[in-house]
Amino acid sequence: MFREILQGIVDEADGISAVLMGYDGLPVDQVERAFEGVDLNLLAVEYANVLKEVKSAVSLLNTGDLEEMAIRTARFNVIIRALTNEYFVTLTMVREGNFGKGRYLLLREAPRLREALR
Amino acid sequence: MFREILQGIVDEADGISAVLMGYDGLPVDQVERAFEGVDLNLLAVEYANVLKEVKSAVSLLNTGDLEEMAIRTARFNVIIRALTNEYFVTLTMVREGNFGKGRYLLLREAPRLREALR
Repeated sequence: MFREILQGIVDEADGISAVLMGYDGLPVDQVERAFEGVDLNLLAVEYANVLKEVKSAVSLLNTGDLEEMAIRTARFNVIIRALTNEYFVTLTMVREGNFGKGRYLLLREAPRLREALR
Repeated sequence: MFREILQGIVDEADGISAVLMGYDGLPVDQVERAFEGVDLNLLAVEYANVLKEVKSAVSLLNTGDLEEMAIRTARFNVIIRALTNEYFVTLTMVREGNFGKGRYLLLREAPRLREALR
């Protein structure tokens, strides 16, 4: 159920990986293409650490709930979308990937993922 | 010198604040408009905490240097651009603000800020 949605996101976005995971750093499900030189599991755990930090900053700061975060490095674009208080979804793309489309796909699929998490 | 560049970014982006700061959480200079219900100084320190976390994740993960990060909450868009190993610049906008223009302005002004930091 999760897998199918994540696979759809990766395929349509031409992404490297999509992961549904908890703020505790444990992935619920993930889809990934082999990609040289990057440990995608480690990546997922680090995302969780970062997002926990952001979430606590956001709640402290009275800026409204966290909805989305994007990180761009010399090699990758990572888009992270908050789903519930417990879970979020990430999409990793190559830097040259279509960032706008990636954002759109996570936004579009968020309700289905939320529904599936119930 | 810094102030003038930051002011230009805030004005042109119709932003709430622009801050040049170190990863230690200390602002070098900042420009802000009064904005109800948000402590912009606290915001800056929290950005630094988040960015430190992201920077360490990125360096651990072999994903290439961190270039940019964006956080979207129910009320704000925050765009953060890495400048040097020590410093970064942030732009906070209302959620309805022109995100793409904000990104462009930070990208455009990054070389001037780097130059001024020397």
